[in-house]
Amino acid sequence: MVRESEIRPSEVAVEPPTATDAGLVFIGRIHTPWSSRLKAPRRGRPDGPICRIELFEPWVAALDGVAAFERLEVLYWLHLSRRDLVRQRPANDGVSRDTFSLRSPVRPNPIGTSIVLLVGIDGPDVLVRGLDCLDGTPLLDLKPDRTLFQPIAPPQEGDHQTDPA
Amino acid sequence: MVRESEIRPSEVAVEPPTATDAGLVFIGRIHTPWSSRLKAPRRGRPDGPICRIELFEPWVAALDGVAAFERLEVLYWLHLSRRDLVRQRPANDGVSRDTFSLRSPVRPNPIGTSIVLLVGIDGPDVLVRGLDCLDGTPLLDLKPDRTLFQPIAPPQEGDHQTDPA
Repeated sequence: MVRESEIRPSEVAVEPPTATDAGLVFIGRIHTPWSSRLKAPRRGRPDGPICRIELFEPWVAALDGVAAFERLEVLYWLHLSRRDLVRQRPANDGVSRDTFSLRSPVRPNPIGTSIVLLVGIDGPDVLVRGLDCLDGTPLLDLKPDRTLFQPIAPPQEGDHQTDPA
Repeated sequence: MVRESEIRPSEVAVEPPTATDAGLVFIGRIHTPWSSRLKAPRRGRPDGPICRIELFEPWVAALDGVAAFERLEVLYWLHLSRRDLVRQRPANDGVSRDTFSLRSPVRPNPIGTSIVLLVGIDGPDVLVRGLDCLDGTPLLDLKPDRTLFQPIAPPQEGDHQTDPA
């Protein structure tokens, strides 16, 4: 695991396939108080510092209505993370764990997801609390928290499909 | 918005930048009962059908320990979604809404996130309930639900940083 990008004893790296199955566009940049991975919170807190999510053009035109939601889900690109570890040792003690059993930033696709509290909208910027990422982190997406949002499209067959088996 | 990929009156598309800021690797494939966007659930339900998340090599080696978590967060690539709409009309009524105020699959980076119930691990496959995506959807990531996971790395300065302002 990473403090910086070293590999620790008992961690396991693989030779990852080239990451060309789909392409991402950075739609903004996140401004936070943390410039070092050794100081950033391990997870955001709802009473944490206000962070500024800056939207890039042409996406600023997609922000209307966001202010109605008390909580947002934010997706961002953990641009400094290595992507090749399948087994990690987060505490650097004797215990290593598999990547999909962790919420470590080191993952084959290093996408961070956070639930944040909306503080306000300021032009092309969204102000929130609850982030844990480094200053300058690229933004991937922004959407209402799942628990606050009701689907708007008309009902579909699958909505009613259950399987008690 | 999309049923299929038409644009409706009052929806707004932009010319999106090329999606080359970062690259994704598809780490698996999700098997669900739904082969049509017109039949899939608008959102997954915890008593929905069991779906099979197939992991590809070399990532199968990162699954140990996942079985300990009752709920998982799943990230997937909404491979059929258009990416250029900033304003959408999900109900196809008179009302259009901005993309970041919706959880529509149509987004600049069409990444779906779901919280699912773990049913079991079957070799390289993870069985879950609660998905809403199409059969064949590419898998991006798998991690413990945030509410069930405690950070393992040693505390850092930012963990304690609050700002009541």
